[in-house]
Amino acid sequence: MPVYLIGAGPGDPELITLKAVNILNKADVVMYDKLANEKILEHAPNAKLIYVGKKAGEHYKSQDEINKIIVNESKDNPNGNIVRLKGGDPFVFGRGGEEILDLIKENISFKIIPGVTSAIGAPASVGLPITHRAVATSFTVVTGHEDPTKNKKQVKWDYTADTIIVLMGIGNMKENTTEMMKYRDPKTPACVIENGTLENEKIIFGTLENIADKKINTPAILVVGNVVDVFKEIKDRN
Amino acid sequence: MPVYLIGAGPGDPELITLKAVNILNKADVVMYDKLANEKILEHAPNAKLIYVGKKAGEHYKSQDEINKIIVNESKDNPNGNIVRLKGGDPFVFGRGGEEILDLIKENISFKIIPGVTSAIGAPASVGLPITHRAVATSFTVVTGHEDPTKNKKQVKWDYTADTIIVLMGIGNMKENTTEMMKYRDPKTPACVIENGTLENEKIIFGTLENIADKKINTPAILVVGNVVDVFKEIKDRN
Ligand SMILES: C[S@@+](CC[C@H](N)C(=O)[O-])C[C@H]1O[C@@H](n2cnc3c(N)ncnc32)[C@H](O)[C@@H]1O
Ligand SMILES: C[S@@+](CC[C@H](N)C(=O)[O-])C[C@H]1O[C@@H](n2cnc3c(N)ncnc32)[C@H](O)[C@@H]1O
Repeated sequence: MPVYLIGAGPGDPELITLKAVNILNKADVVMYDKLANEKILEHAPNAKLIYVGKKAGEHYKSQDEINKIIVNESKDNPNGNIVRLKGGDPFVFGRGGEEILDLIKENISFKIIPGVTSAIGAPASVGLPITHRAVATSFTVVTGHEDPTKNKKQVKWDYTADTIIVLMGIGNMKENTTEMMKYRDPKTPACVIENGTLENEKIIFGTLENIADKKINTPAILVVGNVVDVFKEIKDRN
Repeated sequence: MPVYLIGAGPGDPELITLKAVNILNKADVVMYDKLANEKILEHAPNAKLIYVGKKAGEHYKSQDEINKIIVNESKDNPNGNIVRLKGGDPFVFGRGGEEILDLIKENISFKIIPGVTSAIGAPASVGLPITHRAVATSFTVVTGHEDPTKNKKQVKWDYTADTIIVLMGIGNMKENTTEMMKYRDPKTPACVIENGTLENEKIIFGTLENIADKKINTPAILVVGNVVDVFKEIKDRN
């Protein structure tokens, strides 16, 4: 049996795919980290649930440790249904690539089940059209928290796409928006979507210049570009 | 009742969300265009199905005509469950933004149900990690077929993100890759994913320089960047 890397969607437990639910229903083992919504685990009533994320007071499991757990569970249950469940889509800053490389090294086959990423699902669900015709023909999704091991290669924020969507960017928002202002008008509309698709979803409007000064809770994404103004108009009128 | 704009997912009918299925189950009217998989309509057994896409031998319905149909159906069924079903995610080059602006003008409320976009779902499902750590910290999604009414503003292909994903780009692939080579090494790995997540899914490998010369069927996306090499290695070894 292949190991399944499954995207759980952006938060709302109903935004998981049928395919993911069907596999979870038959799962023997589910390895998950902090999920936007743990209700998703109810789809796997018979599975051994293994939390591989952060525990209060304990250290973060390193990616190597997580990879090892996945490999070991797969070897222990060669005929079982083994699931690695990840928030959003498994390949959008989910480090899914590293997990499959380790499976490949061990000759363990795998299948990826895409999910709705928060990068697209959070804006869509609030009504923000990231590619609104005549305003945006492109969008860039980028991490705001670069791999600390790459400390030499400073990311340049010169992305030319019309809309920029920043994940993991709340902690470094001041630095990142300052960098972006080297290439983009400080008055460019921006907004933050907190807890996208969840009940406590919240939108905070501003500009590239002032959005970092707002009080923001995580998880959240930052959206920069003129589509934010289209959206504000939609929101005001709807 | 709000009008629902629903993303149907990238192709595989199981890659639709639970939320979309629950709404379709109760739908009175479903307006759809060419779907990757019409099996999805089986979730709406009681609905009046209205095809608003291209018909053989007929002209494309203009976006204005589609908007009008959505508005009229919504007015005719003020207490009904009205669904506008779109491939992938409704806001990724889906012109969903225009459809909601017309609803707003008529004081009709709406809700967006995000879906797995082909831009992310097709690479994920074949095992292509678009943000592989140490290789890509950003990706840009762009249309390869710009609004013909904007014929003055030529799109510049100077996107600096590590991975570039082009939708609607098969017809203009030669022009687009030639433009991209002004900013990116012609030897940059590239691949095309045809019919992503469907049974006849196919991957074609090449480089920025030669990918446009390959025989390609639609629908398809083009992926450019070093993650394509990571993926090739994954594929060869898996
Ligand atoms: C490690 S990344 C994983 C992303 C995930 N693979 C995806 O596709 O959504 C975590 C980041 O996703 C974003 N995020 C996840 N869930 C979110 C939500 N419900 N609302 C807003 N942002 C969210 C935040 O920017 C967070 O820092
Ligand atoms: C008008 S756009 C709509 C995109 C849709 N809203 C989404 O999120 O996937 C249509 C383009 O999506 C891409 N596409 C749609 N389905 C696809 C599939 N199953 N495989 C590959 N590309 C696909 C193609 O590039 C096609 O030209």
